[in-house]
Amino acid sequence: MRLSTLFLRTLREDPADAELPGHKLLVRAGYIRRAAPGIYSWLPLGLKVLRKVEAIVREEMDAIGGQELSFPALLPREPYEATNRWTEYGPLIFRLQDRKGNDMLLGPTHEEMFTLAVKDMFSSYKELPLTLYQIQTKYRDEARPRAGLLRGREFVMKDSYSFDVTDEGLEQAYARHREAYVRMFDRLGFDYVVVHADSGAMGGSASEEFLAVSPVGEDTFVRCAESGYAANVEAVVVPQAPPVDEATVAATPAAHVEDTPDSPTIATLVDQGNALHPRADGRPWTAADTLKNVVVLLTHPDGRTEPLAIGLPGDREVDAKRLDAQVAPATWRPFEEADFAAYPMLAKGYIGPGVLGEERSSGIRYLLDPSVAEGSAWVTGADEDGRHVFDLVLGRDFTADGTIQAAEIREGDPSPDGAGPLTLARGIEMGHIFQLGRKYAEALDLKVLDENGKLVTVTMGSYGVGVSRAVAAVAEATHDDLGLVWPRELAPADVHVVATGKDQAVFEHAEGLVAELCDQGLEVVFDDRPKVSPGVKFKDAELLGVPTIVVVGKGLADGVVEVKDRRSGARREVRVETCVAEVLAEVRGATPTPG
Amino acid sequence: MRLSTLFLRTLREDPADAELPGHKLLVRAGYIRRAAPGIYSWLPLGLKVLRKVEAIVREEMDAIGGQELSFPALLPREPYEATNRWTEYGPLIFRLQDRKGNDMLLGPTHEEMFTLAVKDMFSSYKELPLTLYQIQTKYRDEARPRAGLLRGREFVMKDSYSFDVTDEGLEQAYARHREAYVRMFDRLGFDYVVVHADSGAMGGSASEEFLAVSPVGEDTFVRCAESGYAANVEAVVVPQAPPVDEATVAATPAAHVEDTPDSPTIATLVDQGNALHPRADGRPWTAADTLKNVVVLLTHPDGRTEPLAIGLPGDREVDAKRLDAQVAPATWRPFEEADFAAYPMLAKGYIGPGVLGEERSSGIRYLLDPSVAEGSAWVTGADEDGRHVFDLVLGRDFTADGTIQAAEIREGDPSPDGAGPLTLARGIEMGHIFQLGRKYAEALDLKVLDENGKLVTVTMGSYGVGVSRAVAAVAEATHDDLGLVWPRELAPADVHVVATGKDQAVFEHAEGLVAELCDQGLEVVFDDRPKVSPGVKFKDAELLGVPTIVVVGKGLADGVVEVKDRRSGARREVRVETCVAEVLAEVRGATPTPG
Repeated sequence: MRLSTLFLRTLREDPADAELPGHKLLVRAGYIRRAAPGIYSWLPLGLKVLRKVEAIVREEMDAIGGQELSFPALLPREPYEATNRWTEYGPLIFRLQDRKGNDMLLGPTHEEMFTLAVKDMFSSYKELPLTLYQIQTKYRDEARPRAGLLRGREFVMKDSYSFDVTDEGLEQAYARHREAYVRMFDRLGFDYVVVHADSGAMGGSASEEFLAVSPVGEDTFVRCAESGYAANVEAVVVPQAPPVDEATVAATPAAHVEDTPDSPTIATLVDQGNALHPRADGRPWTAADTLKNVVVLLTHPDGRTEPLAIGLPGDREVDAKRLDAQVAPATWRPFEEADFAAYPMLAKGYIGPGVLGEERSSGIRYLLDPSVAEGSAWVTGADEDGRHVFDLVLGRDFTADGTIQAAEIREGDPSPDGAGPLTLARGIEMGHIFQLGRKYAEALDLKVLDENGKLVTVTMGSYGVGVSRAVAAVAEATHDDLGLVWPRELAPADVHVVATGKDQAVFEHAEGLVAELCDQGLEVVFDDRPKVSPGVKFKDAELLGVPTIVVVGKGLADGVVEVKDRRSGARREVRVETCVAEVLAEVRGATPTPG
Repeated sequence: MRLSTLFLRTLREDPADAELPGHKLLVRAGYIRRAAPGIYSWLPLGLKVLRKVEAIVREEMDAIGGQELSFPALLPREPYEATNRWTEYGPLIFRLQDRKGNDMLLGPTHEEMFTLAVKDMFSSYKELPLTLYQIQTKYRDEARPRAGLLRGREFVMKDSYSFDVTDEGLEQAYARHREAYVRMFDRLGFDYVVVHADSGAMGGSASEEFLAVSPVGEDTFVRCAESGYAANVEAVVVPQAPPVDEATVAATPAAHVEDTPDSPTIATLVDQGNALHPRADGRPWTAADTLKNVVVLLTHPDGRTEPLAIGLPGDREVDAKRLDAQVAPATWRPFEEADFAAYPMLAKGYIGPGVLGEERSSGIRYLLDPSVAEGSAWVTGADEDGRHVFDLVLGRDFTADGTIQAAEIREGDPSPDGAGPLTLARGIEMGHIFQLGRKYAEALDLKVLDENGKLVTVTMGSYGVGVSRAVAAVAEATHDDLGLVWPRELAPADVHVVATGKDQAVFEHAEGLVAELCDQGLEVVFDDRPKVSPGVKFKDAELLGVPTIVVVGKGLADGVVEVKDRRSGARREVRVETCVAEVLAEVRGATPTPG
């Protein structure tokens, strides 16, 4: 690739619509260009990187026996209707009609198509296990496309599915994918963590995410250094607090309602409580002793709405994403004035368990945070304006309809596995492996004959990798102030040769060097632009981020060229006679290293 | 690829929705599967063939300096609005709205995006010439998706564009593409012909199509063995017939209207004419002496309609596709009763030049076939029911508004270049190269500074190859009664090894052979299915169409295996010691041959 002819224009200014440094650099270095919100064109250098990510993903999928195929992106409605996702996906799906008025969609993910293909072609347990995958363009009409390729509306994904007759088979397929993903992400060359990704309803290892650790990530995850536990914050399962011992419960005074005027917040409530209604044992009331009851309105995919009350300690907030995960596929929003008007028994700011619960006056389902222990005493709303109830004991004085994992997780919280404190960090979801089970097979009637000639429903795993997203994640993880810094396996070229000055001999020597490097099978970017200053050429080389830069310039008169490592910035002079050998050693000797 | 685990199920029955033999075989052999009308899934073997076509196209594009990039398939409306194609494409475009109500489309072709990308990035003549290409999924909502991959609604295309400042530059880019296409289509291994593809308004070589010669093709083309002239039938320009000499015109009787009751067809008219109104010079009237006037209704992209009358000799029909090409982007349909009602001066079955023409009573534009010579005498409608006019001479007795190339071309017609007779054949459009000129650059304001610092509009070429269509075209061209017969460059594997019988030693030897062949870098399909009969295995091998088949079976006891050539059917016994070497020689010695 010669810069004199390459379809490339590097920019000195950051693009107006980019926020993240990696995104800015991908645009400035001419790797991608925005075509519409969340929709990007891949320019020559960007396409090369994308293809290298694809190749790594393909190799690792082939290595575990994955068979590649390719489904259409434009799909008929019917299969998605059968699994109810036509409805569940809501506005996230791009929908259209063909000229005959048939409903169609742009595939956001292809569980249905894979399931139907296997149903169409296989019929016996002997043909399983089976792993199929595709590397394909997908579409999601994101409400907030973000950060260039990180959350696009048209994007490239690898999705694979495993098909087994037995649960053990599914577990093995899952384990094989997990290993393949570890190899894949090691090769992609960024720091990543594997976290639990669901609430464990299907078992601890049923769903894991591979997150690129990054301060710009949209996902928050927790880690416990002591035990190695790691989970997406949505997936953290806070253990149920053990019951308070009977003696303590017996010593708790009877519940008593008190005037607490003008105390609609936790802070004012705690102040009033300590001032006017001190605890029997003399300990001060704290926010952690108050029980906050938050009411939200759920909207189900079919449009049906339903209120939900969540009781949690007053020193915690409801975590929007954790609640999202709990109520999906429904969505939620906070209760609004009109909602309160429909439930006059709710005293806003003073809502308590007295009216909450399916069997009480509001009829609103009431779920408690698992940290609220049986036998524990609380200060909470008395369902009258300006009044709270004190020493209200769970089990003795009130009950709820169940528990919910919706309270925020905080740095320093204990690990759910009982080990030491959790730390929080942010990550970009790069991969997701998931024991799907029989949900889609049942919806689409995928059965095979087992050893006894009996029809059994197939069990499936679902495994995704964000391929175009990986390009962005690597750019975010590896860039520096000067530009992009590609890991060797993903770089658009192995070497970037810069010819400087006006001396014809320099350009001729550089030409020869480039030819030799290409003969050795290396991919070379050659900055042969005749009238561009060395300063601009060096800046562009740093911006483009090819790992090894060779500068042919004035030193040639002394028989040397400069070889520079883009990442470390280390530079050294090399004799022209040994240059090819040294560059080769550098390129081929390199082993992929994380980060 | 082991058939014991490959995601493949061969079918003995033809699929119900397939008409063409190649399409049937692609489905029966498990290469593709229909997902919706005109929309196909690529199964593992099919995807391998598709990727090989892509690789050939990519190599030849790279060889002429093409730079690969990739535009989105989901595109905003605005660029297509600027070139008026949002309207012109009509129902051929898949249209949709995103969640914010923005109009979007699935790209049917990408002239706009390429033009805007160059406008965005380049600004000087020094940066040109430039050739960009992509291999990408495109969408067209065809009214009649046909023949599997031959005319799909989602399909893979290579489209490239050249950008030049001068017309000479464009001609050179066009010539380079033409050479690349010749190499590409030679390698794809089917019989093809390069034909003129437009009416020559932009010069003889401005547009050519590469057609795969095939009786199942949708395109009809003509060839002249004598001169080598070849053209799509839509593109044939029939030369204007020279004027009739003055003496002949002078000797033609004055036009005379005659009663010709019940003669609404050419045949009845000729019979009546010869019986009741013989020609002055005694020669019989023939259909070729009659002038048929056909009226159609044009619909323009903006919805406006307009009638058009076409005058042509009575022994020719209007060719629907030639007329399509002439009136595009408008469409047409025959005049219907309601249309006639709006033009009472048209006597259906007896329409003549007396009322046709922009300056006559109907006001309908009237265009003549170029074979109608100035001074020639005709029998034609007299615009009264049951009456015709005889000896009506063009120029003396009537005029028209111009000529139109819409009459059918027939086997044996003279070649437009003056050489011998034309022959007709059918073909599948596989490639199209086209000197686009400045149309899109003007619409989208793509200008660069020339040597004198003056802004000049760039001139473009547009070049397409049907990549997924090529898979179908090759299947149609190369199959035989037994199954698919892939050319070596496109085959999903180099060798198909069949192990037959129940002898463990046979399977073990076959395993070893497959391993050796793979070590040599060959791609192997291995039929290792333990309980499948030799007959079924042989049939499947023939159906799948891998070029070389090696059968390991009973002969192994005598130290031989059988090597079979799929295309010729030739089989020979080979010593096991030399088997790998012989197979390698066969695979590597093979040079691509057309057909």
